[in-house]
Amino acid sequence: MFFASDNWAGAHTAINERLMRESIRFAAAYGTSDLDRAIEQRFNEIFEREVAVFFVATGTAANSLALASVERPGGVVFAHSEAHVIEDECGAPDFFSGMRMIPVEGAEGKINPLNLKARMARYPQTAVHHGRAAAITITQATEVGSIYSLDEIQVVSDIAKAEGLPLHMDGARFANALVALDATPAEMTWKRDVDILSFGGTKNGCWCAEAIVFFDPAMAKELPFIRKRAAQLFSKSRFIAAQFEAYLKDDLWLELAGHANAMADRLREGLRASNTARLAWPTQSNEVFTVLPKEMMKAAQEKGAKFYDWLEPRDMPEPVGDDEALIRLVTSFATTAEDVDAFLSAIA
Amino acid sequence: MFFASDNWAGAHTAINERLMRESIRFAAAYGTSDLDRAIEQRFNEIFEREVAVFFVATGTAANSLALASVERPGGVVFAHSEAHVIEDECGAPDFFSGMRMIPVEGAEGKINPLNLKARMARYPQTAVHHGRAAAITITQATEVGSIYSLDEIQVVSDIAKAEGLPLHMDGARFANALVALDATPAEMTWKRDVDILSFGGTKNGCWCAEAIVFFDPAMAKELPFIRKRAAQLFSKSRFIAAQFEAYLKDDLWLELAGHANAMADRLREGLRASNTARLAWPTQSNEVFTVLPKEMMKAAQEKGAKFYDWLEPRDMPEPVGDDEALIRLVTSFATTAEDVDAFLSAIA
Amino acid sequence: MFFASDNWAGAHTAINERLMRESIRFAAAYGTSDLDRAIEQRFNEIFEREVAVFFVATGTAANSLALASVERPGGVVFAHSEAHVIEDECGAPDFFSGMRMIPVEGAEGKINPLNLKARMARYPQTAVHHGRAAAITITQATEVGSIYSLDEIQVVSDIAKAEGLPLHMDGARFANALVALDATPAEMTWKRDVDILSFGGTKNGCWCAEAIVFFDPAMAKELPFIRKRAAQLFSKSRFIAAQFEAYLKDDLWLELAGHANAMADRLREGLRASNTARLAWPTQSNEVFTVLPKEMMKAAQEKGAKFYDWLEPRDMPEPVGDDEALIRLVTSFATTAEDVDAFLSAIA
Amino acid sequence: MFFASDNWAGAHTAINERLMRESIRFAAAYGTSDLDRAIEQRFNEIFEREVAVFFVATGTAANSLALASVERPGGVVFAHSEAHVIEDECGAPDFFSGMRMIPVEGAEGKINPLNLKARMARYPQTAVHHGRAAAITITQATEVGSIYSLDEIQVVSDIAKAEGLPLHMDGARFANALVALDATPAEMTWKRDVDILSFGGTKNGCWCAEAIVFFDPAMAKELPFIRKRAAQLFSKSRFIAAQFEAYLKDDLWLELAGHANAMADRLREGLRASNTARLAWPTQSNEVFTVLPKEMMKAAQEKGAKFYDWLEPRDMPEPVGDDEALIRLVTSFATTAEDVDAFLSAIA
Repeated sequence: MFFASDNWAGAHTAINERLMRESIRFAAAYGTSDLDRAIEQRFNEIFEREVAVFFVATGTAANSLALASVERPGGVVFAHSEAHVIEDECGAPDFFSGMRMIPVEGAEGKINPLNLKARMARYPQTAVHHGRAAAITITQATEVGSIYSLDEIQVVSDIAKAEGLPLHMDGARFANALVALDATPAEMTWKRDVDILSFGGTKNGCWCAEAIVFFDPAMAKELPFIRKRAAQLFSKSRFIAAQFEAYLKDDLWLELAGHANAMADRLREGLRASNTARLAWPTQSNEVFTVLPKEMMKAAQEKGAKFYDWLEPRDMPEPVGDDEALIRLVTSFATTAEDVDAFLSAIA
Repeated sequence: MFFASDNWAGAHTAINERLMRESIRFAAAYGTSDLDRAIEQRFNEIFEREVAVFFVATGTAANSLALASVERPGGVVFAHSEAHVIEDECGAPDFFSGMRMIPVEGAEGKINPLNLKARMARYPQTAVHHGRAAAITITQATEVGSIYSLDEIQVVSDIAKAEGLPLHMDGARFANALVALDATPAEMTWKRDVDILSFGGTKNGCWCAEAIVFFDPAMAKELPFIRKRAAQLFSKSRFIAAQFEAYLKDDLWLELAGHANAMADRLREGLRASNTARLAWPTQSNEVFTVLPKEMMKAAQEKGAKFYDWLEPRDMPEPVGDDEALIRLVTSFATTAEDVDAFLSAIA
Repeated sequence: MFFASDNWAGAHTAINERLMRESIRFAAAYGTSDLDRAIEQRFNEIFEREVAVFFVATGTAANSLALASVERPGGVVFAHSEAHVIEDECGAPDFFSGMRMIPVEGAEGKINPLNLKARMARYPQTAVHHGRAAAITITQATEVGSIYSLDEIQVVSDIAKAEGLPLHMDGARFANALVALDATPAEMTWKRDVDILSFGGTKNGCWCAEAIVFFDPAMAKELPFIRKRAAQLFSKSRFIAAQFEAYLKDDLWLELAGHANAMADRLREGLRASNTARLAWPTQSNEVFTVLPKEMMKAAQEKGAKFYDWLEPRDMPEPVGDDEALIRLVTSFATTAEDVDAFLSAIA
Repeated sequence: MFFASDNWAGAHTAINERLMRESIRFAAAYGTSDLDRAIEQRFNEIFEREVAVFFVATGTAANSLALASVERPGGVVFAHSEAHVIEDECGAPDFFSGMRMIPVEGAEGKINPLNLKARMARYPQTAVHHGRAAAITITQATEVGSIYSLDEIQVVSDIAKAEGLPLHMDGARFANALVALDATPAEMTWKRDVDILSFGGTKNGCWCAEAIVFFDPAMAKELPFIRKRAAQLFSKSRFIAAQFEAYLKDDLWLELAGHANAMADRLREGLRASNTARLAWPTQSNEVFTVLPKEMMKAAQEKGAKFYDWLEPRDMPEPVGDDEALIRLVTSFATTAEDVDAFLSAIA
């Protein structure tokens, strides 16, 4: 019953096997091998256009270097107030980009367009004292399990484009969102005017595979230097490439995300049917938030369930009672139906 | 005939197998798993004292964050003029530490103590305008295949201690040096007053396993934040831990380094016996530098040998002739005697 | 009728005359002259204890370097949401300190202690992912003309001390606050556990005189390097010292601030007596915010009055009407009663 | 007998008087006043083309922000090994630009073009590991009193242009060089393909007046933000402008530099005629380096002469003897013939 995070899971067999095959050969280092080249080509296919791809060690690195690539002195970056770049990266985005992250409120983890415009109005391009708008970043799927619809992405893009700002997408759970929307990678990104993507594989079955994807390669021309200076250029880069090869082959990545999402559906269904627990807010990806009596939470923990308490957000539809707890449950490629059912039983 | 670099090799079977076992289980993320804890304990044993250990993605990260941990405003760091932190890291050490790297000359890739003292004299602790000495870093084994003897390390340490400076060791090829000196890890580090070590596993059979080791854990108290802010905290950190477990088990790491060194010995012997090629300078680790006629170099390349040209250093005992080339040959855990012999034949 | 800002005023005669006398002599550069030493001593007297003083070029520099001196990796700094460090310094505090400024709400420009505690609770010292509390900064007088009472300062200090955090005070208008409170410099700072002060002279009659004051000199030991590296060490530092000498002599600074405050009182009184304009919120220092019909605002502008529109804050006691404008009026040492009366007539 | 540095002098009367006139009026802050605009226009006239001008607090700021404006990730900047940016700015250029300063040797404080090319060859634009050439900076007049001829500037410019690099000139003693060469500001800068100039007034009669001048205003578009974020935007910016107005009016600046140079000539002449002292190397600006018996040096000091010892450079034409001292003597607008003669007597 491991629901603490999708990064508590291990790595998928197909990915391991690919790594094994990779390990017995020699190849050029620092991202210059044929395999690196081939995987970059693979990303072109996945995204139906020529893209520039850079492997890095962590999702934090992907986000931070993506934002560093659009750095402007005195610039600020708009992100949802609960975004990973604001809440969970120890200031790395500010450190690497030299820009301040500006929180924007919005229900269900999604930037509210009106709030975004209001915040941006304070940071015009001439604002030497105040600072100026330099980029917008959204998270797909969000930190709280929701998903921007394609239209919702476009609304944010339009705001970005109207101000000439690049739009970044934190796709730590990109595959989960993609499957939930039944969209293509192109549809969920550059066809909605997303400029840069943090493409995460680690939470979905790789053990370490994160990439920054630029939909306009010209925007990436400084990235090789930004990445190396950030100590993010692996010597054995091809082991990242190998993971991505297996990950993207025969739609494995979509299959794994589909499984994780299905397990979350099963959880949601069980919680909806529960007499005591309730869904904290609607979610569509592999994250489920539930409010349940504290004693039930403890009961589940005693039976070995792993999950995190969650801070009650301002905009809870129905507040958390004194005897209740708000918890986050995350499913992954490795979650089984038995685990889900065991958890549901544990809190029944 | 892959002699371009030891990071062109893959990963050792024992390490792969350990990764496979790790991949099928769940465990806590971000370095908090039992395995992470166990490996930290293992480092204590290896170094015969309580140390603080931090896994990072690359050797550049290990060096840069080690230096960041001893950051002082206006500080400068003394390194050999050919050191990786100066020549090969795209300014990452400066970027992360906020300090300038000051090159110190010295024969065979080793800091000359007299030069070091002379350089340091320009950077006293009161030098607000000039900048002040903040750290010294040495590379063991060096970039050009030589090794500091234990006494030579102590000489540099004494200079550092006399000025109250921390001493860092870049141990990207730590195991190769250790085996060549037949010393213990403790003898080559803290017993010679080394304060911080970049402990590299990637070049010696891991696919990605680098660690920063603090011999005084009190010096490491900011490192968790420095590392996270640097985007170097792996969510699936335990996959690094797993590599180190296999690497350090039953002295595998020493065995692999011993093999690489032995292959280099075989190369050196062959080159010494050669009528045309000659050793550029004496080396003791898994790097060999040879001067040979350009046409022989091309012949070897045409037969598939991989290696790098090398820039002629100032202090070559015997200059490189116009028709000659200076090349670097690096052996690894995966180099075979057949490869070595094939290369020797190719240039015969 | 110059009410745009107190930094639109020139420099006081006594300060100019002191600069003239300074200009005809030679003296040691970079803050090492006898005059620099003497003024440092003068600060000791003003603050009734040994302090460490550093002159810098701007208030932004004073704030930024003060915060840089308490830098911690992954640290965050709490400031009122309208504080200069957040709104008006183009990210300089983040740039120099490497820390993110976290806005805390509070009425009348003052940090609300409950909000502060709530924000701080999110940043415990162990929060590697989230970031950790590193400092608190308050502005005295605030950006919106209010003043923390001595007790209110103590409340914030107590919160800071309970978490072991340093407390910084942005004193760009320190003298105005001091006079309004009729307190001593010591009472308004270290006796209320303020650790570091940005001591501003520029807005109160100097043309360029800003200082960072550390009440515990031991906290300042890195500042000489931080300042020099920040390009803030004047070669002719003694011209700053000379300004401070005249400024602090015979209580000139208090006299000038007293005048500015009195002019603001006269404005407030006139506005209160006005039939049409009203005070936007209570203020005690040399800033006055008033709501008046837009046509009156224009009338005043046409008669030559200079002032700034102001963005309506969330917590306005009485909202600004559609036909009304919210404006800021700042008085200074150079404001005359005639100017004030002319403005009041202009809007009558 | 103040020969320690030209920044030990005070400020010229005409500049003081202009400051006095400025002090009694109100004007817009932060560089937006009419006077700021007028002085920018004045720079256009001085340089015979449209330039972009930015006032800053110190020469270190001018150099650092000039280099920050041409920042490239992983970039390096080439400077003479004795340049102020390398020796005297506590790492500020690295801090603000994020780039490493690479020392280039050359006789008499001037970059040797062959050495420059050799150094640059190590930093091609594709050098992700090594770092890439991003800018070149020269100092005019140099730190050791010499001056680049117009042709010598062009030689360096040509090397810069061939690699597509911007060329910066540190003109802390720009006027002294200009007068010595009898060239126009245009001839010594953009007509020799200099792109950015640190234009210093402080060492030549202002008390604080430094400017960054861009000969192509398009290169300056980020500078307003870079400057503000660097805490270098004065609120009472017009007091810098006022100094420059007086400084540039009726060729005062050239007259002051001419006087300083003439005083240096007088010194040189006296030293050449001396039996015991000798000129250490030829100089043309307001700096003179002399070797004299230690006892004479002490005699001069006892009579009140102020000057600095100097570290013996590698390439001294005639080495400094054990009983000798190498000292630097700097003249300024405020140096008198009596001072010079008194010094010459003191060492006779």
